[in-house]
Amino acid sequence: MTRVSSAAVGDEGGSGVASLLAERYGEARPADILSNAVIGQLLNHRSVRAFVPDTLPENVIETLVAAAQSASTSSNLQVWSVVAVENPAHKAELAALAGDQDFIRQAPLFLVWLADLSRVRALGEAHEVTVEGTEFLESLVLGVVDATLAAQNAVVALESLGLGSVYVGAIRNRPLEVAESLKLPPYVFPVFGLAIGYPDPQRPASVKPRLPQAAVLHRETYDASRQPQAVETYDRVLDAFWKGQAQEHPSWSQHVLSRLGRAQALKGRDRLLALARALGFPLR
Amino acid sequence: MTRVSSAAVGDEGGSGVASLLAERYGEARPADILSNAVIGQLLNHRSVRAFVPDTLPENVIETLVAAAQSASTSSNLQVWSVVAVENPAHKAELAALAGDQDFIRQAPLFLVWLADLSRVRALGEAHEVTVEGTEFLESLVLGVVDATLAAQNAVVALESLGLGSVYVGAIRNRPLEVAESLKLPPYVFPVFGLAIGYPDPQRPASVKPRLPQAAVLHRETYDASRQPQAVETYDRVLDAFWKGQAQEHPSWSQHVLSRLGRAQALKGRDRLLALARALGFPLR
Repeated sequence: MTRVSSAAVGDEGGSGVASLLAERYGEARPADILSNAVIGQLLNHRSVRAFVPDTLPENVIETLVAAAQSASTSSNLQVWSVVAVENPAHKAELAALAGDQDFIRQAPLFLVWLADLSRVRALGEAHEVTVEGTEFLESLVLGVVDATLAAQNAVVALESLGLGSVYVGAIRNRPLEVAESLKLPPYVFPVFGLAIGYPDPQRPASVKPRLPQAAVLHRETYDASRQPQAVETYDRVLDAFWKGQAQEHPSWSQHVLSRLGRAQALKGRDRLLALARALGFPLR
Repeated sequence: MTRVSSAAVGDEGGSGVASLLAERYGEARPADILSNAVIGQLLNHRSVRAFVPDTLPENVIETLVAAAQSASTSSNLQVWSVVAVENPAHKAELAALAGDQDFIRQAPLFLVWLADLSRVRALGEAHEVTVEGTEFLESLVLGVVDATLAAQNAVVALESLGLGSVYVGAIRNRPLEVAESLKLPPYVFPVFGLAIGYPDPQRPASVKPRLPQAAVLHRETYDASRQPQAVETYDRVLDAFWKGQAQEHPSWSQHVLSRLGRAQALKGRDRLLALARALGFPLR
């Protein structure tokens, strides 16, 4: 084993976590939480969109995959895969397909996480058994959940190594072209990308504030009554965050309404049902 | 902040990780990976299905939600929520709906993770704006991804506190009844449950072996040619695991073919498309 110091993990047991909670929630921060170094690292997460060109340490991909495979998987079915893209021309091709986002070209490593039922289909063929269970919406949900659990473990692992990353949902803008670029067999659906590298210290990322806990945490039953107040508070918290960054942004409410307002704003993802079917998932 | 020692996190930098890799991959373990305490904790994950009745520390729910909210979320839309169920009668009701699994009754805390577009719908109504973007399959994928990223961060946090957990996909067997039990508004879809508690030391859980990396990790493009050999190896590794547990189990291949073979084996989840629509998602 190669020993590596945990660059991102200090002892965040005390004031470190208090300050991270303030960054994460602003005026709506919870009074008290439990803390240790791992929780400190999780609270300290930020999406990194600016990378230095440094190469990554040896065996980093095997390390992230070992972390990813150690996550839970529905019924141990393991219906996910990942494609590691490092070739600059190939990365540039995927960047163009995924909203033409330049950080994908910059990052030395781009992982594309897949909901993968093709392994199960191949097993069925080898054993001459029908696998009808792959034909329903449930099988896509299984694959999306498995791929996402795996990816998030990889993110926790890479941040512990001092690396940074950002998820790229825009991989779903043009899934057929992505499938062609990665030579995916049928029954494989690209869920999202993950651009990975060392964060550029000249352009540091910030902890992004989130909704007050009252908006997302419910006790025993769902309570919608606290939502309007929580959203109003959050609009204020996020406005303060953008001001601190000297950036002009619409309010969170306006962002959500514009991002999910009209079908066109989905940049092709309004066709996802048809596209998933074209990728081989009947989605009965 | 309350300081808590990291019960599950030792210095797994050296031989600890080597031994965990052997448990995770058996004969197919990768030669070398990077390691530190966080990676050691991730590799050490095991699903816990036996809990002691001890109560949980104060503020543990707020802690797990802070970790969960610190995960990435698609375009900062935060289209997820979680319901914390602690009432024994309510937990028993959900256990009955989710495959009648007794560990849900045993665990002091059961979290139900939700793909939640209702917040966006309510915002649209308040602003008298249509939110057509919520009507497509993409919006369910957004919600499932967001809920899963959040949940996995909560799992990493709870394991750092010495707690254990197991995901409960069977929450999707009867989603309409679950929605009724949790009083979910339309546009909210229960993705999975998570049973949480202190692991019972009398019935310790094991690290479950996974497929060789050759099965899930692809370089530049998808390579299906290595799958048959990887699956053959894995069938052998998992057989050895079950023998070590003095348990009789079918091979992994047989497990997969039976679990996804016929629609009936999905225990109602073959109706998920219709059920998600009944929960308010048009899934155009």
